[in-house]
Order: sequence, then structure tokens, then C-alpha cells
Amino acid sequence: MLTLYYATNTCALASHIALEEAGAAYETRWVDFGAAEQTKPEYLKINPKGRVPALVTDRGALTETPAILAYIAQTHAAAQLAPLDDPFAFADLQAFMSYLCATVHVAHAHRARGYPWADDSAAHEAMKKKVPQSVGACFDLIERKMLCGPWVMGDAYTIADPYLFTIARWMEVDSVDPAAFPRVLDHRDRMAERPAVQRVLKAEGLA
Amino acid sequence: MLTLYYATNTCALASHIALEEAGAAYETRWVDFGAAEQTKPEYLKINPKGRVPALVTDRGALTETPAILAYIAQTHAAAQLAPLDDPFAFADLQAFMSYLCATVHVAHAHRARGYPWADDSAAHEAMKKKVPQSVGACFDLIERKMLCGPWVMGDAYTIADPYLFTIARWMEVDSVDPAAFPRVLDHRDRMAERPAVQRVLKAEGLA
Repeated sequence: MLTLYYATNTCALASHIALEEAGAAYETRWVDFGAAEQTKPEYLKINPKGRVPALVTDRGALTETPAILAYIAQTHAAAQLAPLDDPFAFADLQAFMSYLCATVHVAHAHRARGYPWADDSAAHEAMKKKVPQSVGACFDLIERKMLCGPWVMGDAYTIADPYLFTIARWMEVDSVDPAAFPRVLDHRDRMAERPAVQRVLKAEGLA
Repeated sequence: MLTLYYATNTCALASHIALEEAGAAYETRWVDFGAAEQTKPEYLKINPKGRVPALVTDRGALTETPAILAYIAQTHAAAQLAPLDDPFAFADLQAFMSYLCATVHVAHAHRARGYPWADDSAAHEAMKKKVPQSVGACFDLIERKMLCGPWVMGDAYTIADPYLFTIARWMEVDSVDPAAFPRVLDHRDRMAERPAVQRVLKAEGLA
């Protein structure tokens, strides 16, 4: 049995969807960010970074969305969520996920969570102001160069799809107009229709 | 034949070392950041993100350090640079690399490359000021919780080792005192003694 630690409206949604798509045996534990539960000793024993997601397995806890997603794909090979036997295609998939993790999510995080990178509030305001442009530039690159279609990596649905879906749900809160990125928006709409995605959104209280 | 596009003193060093450790057939192309070569149409055809590293293979170009490193390990299995047959251990390795990519490197980037995240120079100064603390906090976590020893993931040398080495070389420029992190410093010193690392440092003009 796997246990996913998640908080609502975070990137943990991607791992949650992947577990559901994989038909994994899992349970979820909600981490109450409002009560700063992620900073408490009990949670730090699971993930010393104090963040979500964390996926607890019988061998220990895993962190970081790209790593968790690849783990789900590798341990549920029948679900065919990644090109496991093709190192080039697997690396290409990982490159997409790495971009979401280290560039798009990071750009988004400057809106409401600037404290790791500056102390003063004027700098936080300057960061917040830049987010529509910085996140918008990321989606522009995804729209033009990275989203193969119909799914992220082409014909096959992979773990990159719930990850893009998760981050594309933040466009409105980042003041990025989804209409400017019709291929990303179409992908997001098709993702939202998948039964596994609907089950997860319901479970997280998002639908 | 693989071709690695790199610039000096960037995270591309990790991929360069991994290629050398793997005994790969590769050549390198230096991208002249001083002449903004990474922003020119010729380079953007290879990597539309305008960054390094990029690894050109006979199937196309790969980007993002964690993806390139995993590709090198998977395509040079005899070099045993990753636990390829153990999904949990592989994910644990990927989680370490993802932390370097999306948290440590990102914290470092706020020192001299704040422009993606804010426009005004006062905000850039505020970011720069925070770097010793934010990068220091990352190395504190690595020192206490993440570096298994003697190598990053334990007894086996993996692709995480050149990646940590690469980023740990930036401690001084980030005004982080390496003496505060003796296990990271010891790792960096042992890495610098490896013949493959010495060959790469020499090839990049760093030794």
C-alpha cells in the first residue's frame, strides 16, 4: 500500500492523478497547510523538506514530483504511463517534467511564496508583478514547442499529462490568460474529462 | 556520437563529467554566453529554452540536467551510474537530482540572474542578499539528511555525484562557507581527485 501526502491546490495533484490512472493501491493523507502541519516534527520525519507531495512506500518515503511520477510509471508498467524501454523517449519525457518542476512551477511560486528568495516585502511585490509575464512565457514555449499533441509527448498518454494539467490549472490565479494558449487549454479540457481525473478532483474537494 | 553543448561554470559540468565517467563517445561544443550565443537562432534550434546543457543524440536533442544524466546512465549501463533495475532506488536518486535542479540551483540563480522573476534592480539586490542564506539552508539539509556517504546515494557512485559536485563548486561565489558543511566538502574534495573529473575540468579550462 502506498500513501500519498498531499495538500489541496499543490503540485501533489499530479501524483494523485497518476496513482489513480495507474490503478495503484494507495491511500491519501491530507496535510493541513493552514495549520502549518508540513513544518511539524511529525511531518518532517516523512519529508524533511517540509513540502508535498511525499509518497510513502514499503521501502521509505519518496519526494519530488518528477521522481514520484516516474516511480509510479515504473512500478505499474501495465498502465503504460511512460516509455520505459526507450531511454531517449524516457529522457525526453523527463526533460518536460523537469521544465515544469524547475522553471514553470518556480515561476509560479514567486507569486505567493517569495520568502525563500528575498526578505523584504517590496521585493515580494516586484516578484508577484512579474508572474503573469514569466509564467506566460513558459506556457508560450509549451504551446509552441513542447506540447506534441494530442498528449504532451504525442499519441501516448504519460505521466507528463497530469503534471501539465496540474500546473495549467494555475494559469488564472497567475493572471495568465488561457485563451492565449489554445493547445494547452484544449489539453486541460480533455484532461478534466478523464474519469480518473474527475475521481481525484472530487476526492480533493476540487470538483 | 553524442554532442554536449555547454558553457563554463554552469550545471552542464555535471553532464560532461557523467559522459566521461560513462566512457561515452562524445564531443563538446562550447556555447559562448559572453556573446549571447545561447539566444541566437542557430542555438535555439537545438534548445528553444536558450540554456545549457543540451545533449544532441542521433534521435534529437535532450535538455535538462536530470533527464540528460539519467539518459547517460541508461544508455551506458555497464558503467553502473544508476540503480536501473530498482525503481525505488532510481526514484530516490531522481528525487535528489530534482532537489538540486529545482531548489538548490534555483536558489543560486537568484544571485546573478534575477531577471526572470522581477524587473526592478532593488528586487534583484534583495534576491542577491538572500542567496547565502537560501543556498546555505539547502546545503544544511543535504549535509544533515540527504548525502548518504561516502557517495550521495551510499556506497555506489552515481550520476547524483557529479551533479552535487557541480553545484557545490558554487558555494564560495554564493558566500556560503564550505567549512560549515564538512561532509559536502569532503565529497567535493574526493570528486576533484577522480581522474574523469580532472580530465573534464581541464577540458573546460577550470583546472
